[in-house]
Amino acid sequence: MERDRDSRHHVVIVGAGFGGLQAAKALGKADTVRVTVVDRYNHHLFQPLLYQVATAVLNPADISAPIRSVLHSRNTEVLLAEAKSVDARRKVLVVEGGEIPYDSLVLATGATHSYFKHPEWAQVAPGLKTLEDAVRIRERVLTAFEAAERESDPVRQRQWMTFVIIGAGPTGVELAGALSYMTRHALPKDFRRIDTREARVILLEGLPRVLNAYPEELSEAAKKDLEALHVEVRTGAMVTGIDEEGVTFGDEHIATRTVLWGAGVAASPLVRSLEVPLDRAGRVKVSPQLTAPGLNDVYVIGDVAAVEQNGKPVPGIAPAAMQMGRHVAKTIRDRLQQKPLSPFRYHDKGSFAVIGRGYAVGLLFDKWSMKGLPAWLVWAGVHVAYLIGFRNRASVMLNWAYTFFTKGGRDMRLITGKVATRLPALAPSAQGPVLPPSARPELPASQPAPVH
Amino acid sequence: MERDRDSRHHVVIVGAGFGGLQAAKALGKADTVRVTVVDRYNHHLFQPLLYQVATAVLNPADISAPIRSVLHSRNTEVLLAEAKSVDARRKVLVVEGGEIPYDSLVLATGATHSYFKHPEWAQVAPGLKTLEDAVRIRERVLTAFEAAERESDPVRQRQWMTFVIIGAGPTGVELAGALSYMTRHALPKDFRRIDTREARVILLEGLPRVLNAYPEELSEAAKKDLEALHVEVRTGAMVTGIDEEGVTFGDEHIATRTVLWGAGVAASPLVRSLEVPLDRAGRVKVSPQLTAPGLNDVYVIGDVAAVEQNGKPVPGIAPAAMQMGRHVAKTIRDRLQQKPLSPFRYHDKGSFAVIGRGYAVGLLFDKWSMKGLPAWLVWAGVHVAYLIGFRNRASVMLNWAYTFFTKGGRDMRLITGKVATRLPALAPSAQGPVLPPSARPELPASQPAPVH
Repeated sequence: MERDRDSRHHVVIVGAGFGGLQAAKALGKADTVRVTVVDRYNHHLFQPLLYQVATAVLNPADISAPIRSVLHSRNTEVLLAEAKSVDARRKVLVVEGGEIPYDSLVLATGATHSYFKHPEWAQVAPGLKTLEDAVRIRERVLTAFEAAERESDPVRQRQWMTFVIIGAGPTGVELAGALSYMTRHALPKDFRRIDTREARVILLEGLPRVLNAYPEELSEAAKKDLEALHVEVRTGAMVTGIDEEGVTFGDEHIATRTVLWGAGVAASPLVRSLEVPLDRAGRVKVSPQLTAPGLNDVYVIGDVAAVEQNGKPVPGIAPAAMQMGRHVAKTIRDRLQQKPLSPFRYHDKGSFAVIGRGYAVGLLFDKWSMKGLPAWLVWAGVHVAYLIGFRNRASVMLNWAYTFFTKGGRDMRLITGKVATRLPALAPSAQGPVLPPSARPELPASQPAPVH
Repeated sequence: MERDRDSRHHVVIVGAGFGGLQAAKALGKADTVRVTVVDRYNHHLFQPLLYQVATAVLNPADISAPIRSVLHSRNTEVLLAEAKSVDARRKVLVVEGGEIPYDSLVLATGATHSYFKHPEWAQVAPGLKTLEDAVRIRERVLTAFEAAERESDPVRQRQWMTFVIIGAGPTGVELAGALSYMTRHALPKDFRRIDTREARVILLEGLPRVLNAYPEELSEAAKKDLEALHVEVRTGAMVTGIDEEGVTFGDEHIATRTVLWGAGVAASPLVRSLEVPLDRAGRVKVSPQLTAPGLNDVYVIGDVAAVEQNGKPVPGIAPAAMQMGRHVAKTIRDRLQQKPLSPFRYHDKGSFAVIGRGYAVGLLFDKWSMKGLPAWLVWAGVHVAYLIGFRNRASVMLNWAYTFFTKGGRDMRLITGKVATRLPALAPSAQGPVLPPSARPELPASQPAPVH
């Protein structure tokens, strides 16, 4: 039995995102292979809805599922570990605290933020890739309103109530739309001293239009919809500076305490250890079988793979990664059965970007443009369908339905930790009587005595 | 208008737990007062269910609600700030970054863990008071199983799979029962190398019986139910040492990597600045009007107040705090109207401790003992009723129902952060082939070449 087991072909999959999970699932029934899935997190993340965690519509658990509970096949093991490098010569994956020998390796480690040549921006302008990122952004945004409520200096109050999102790709657009919606619908009733509807949400994009990967008419529609949601859209705005006090682009400076990053992504650095040619974004230019050049046993899929089809890059979206995962599983099985191999073909079923509640733009089957409510309905339907298989879909739908009918998402507005220390000093006028300073007694002891 | 407003009696409430929230709500309609609620967290926490967040049955958002969304009265302000001290002479509450003058002050800051004379235990044996605590405990428990799965040394594996809970009051009993249930029902399917049902859950209590505040027959029933859930109950066990490697009591030492603290609570330290007599647990011995001795404008309620009635202490539970909150609101209104004041009377409607799914013990109206399923049904009904008014009750009930019918709570098993660095080094045998070492090829490169 033990011998039998060990003679099986060992497939090691790094990363349990959309691509890695599909590969593992598709290999889960093959009895000639055993599978080890390595991830540094214990959960698979439904990344397309991450911006809704960041804007307090959904809970972290709504969009994540423990990898162990998703992969229950007998031939599959899950290992919580951070992959450090690949030693392709020895056919070993090096993880923190050990090494894992493989027969076939599938690298599906995804993308990370790229701050181009400004790593120092990472501290002030968090991006949105992990649950931790989403929770951090949520807490920053909520804390900014708490600070504005405390702040007595109108200039600084304005600064706290200004939010800048850099990059108008799908993530930036979705964040900007949801954030603006939140300031106008979910929050106003909560504050006494500020009107959250006066918050500015500014979306900066270096290119001439938003959602650059989409046809121009959709970019136009998206811009109009964003503006209807009170998002200030500034295209052709190349950011040259970001710090705690604001953002600089061209000759302009916006005073803000909250900058969010949706601009650059780069492939996860693990693939560098393969020592094969990478493109500018750090991705591996893979073969038609999705293997790394010269390494027939190393498959690279999802956001770490650069795949071209009909002269266009295959987009870095979940459906593409899933298709690659399934294709790699098929290739591994075909090889073991010495069948002929087929090249990977991407089937573009569509891609959508949500702008706000009931607004989206998208391309169906890479040809039909959609916008407004019809696009949003397709988007929502597709996402609910994808969530099937995850137990949390009931809860997601409940939260969505609640948000839709009440403008709310109220109880997601959770700051888990203490935030007081990040807030501005309390202005004397902020909590004391609101009399003009001259009329206000110097010492509270001289106030009118309470009636007993 | 501004003048009108400032002539109102200013009630400052510190702490938006059960007591503070009730006081604020009861004062919310009085037009002769204005209310400021100060809390260092932005959410009210439904603490009685916190152990279910720690044991991955509920989400943090299921048992918390933003204070701002709970308190919507026009006369009420919410301030996110950490209270530092009270200057009773100047009638000022000192918070981080400022001061807040008050006419009446309500201190409802609750309790914190007490490690008696061993503050160094706080690091190794986390207690359960805040959402951060609950999430930390959940992650520690889940990570312990991940570590056991990786560990090849059976002694250390055993250590990872041993859980010690110190203190068999309601929190300790509830944690132990839920943890044991989780190891036997929610987790087993997830792991390949360990059988989570072999985990030991040990409950240590220094006193001669569990749930010491309850009648003896209920302690007996609780102990039997815990043992039926495979919890090892050790009473009369005074802990003398806790470190990263285990727990010492009497002549015994239990090797464990996970110790949870349910033993001591102490009043929050803010009341010390009042410079009035405190009891051994640091609580203020209040007057019949729940004021601090000699300070008629400073009310102390909930877990920071020591109240005796019929020679027995009023218990530190949510209903008692809520009754005190409402009584203080009434006293403040009565004083403003120069009505006679009535002393506080605690109405004991009952108290319950849950042992596991369908098991509880409790005392109804301080006289009728209940145990087993009937007690659990009363407990569940009361808690669902209390949650009314919180939007999350639908979600809580959904999660409960799911857990009840599927033995699950599966998708709450979320470790938000990366945990890999806390795990043991990967044993060579843990992920490689499971052949005996002598039969295993030294270098993976010499393994049978994969078929292409």
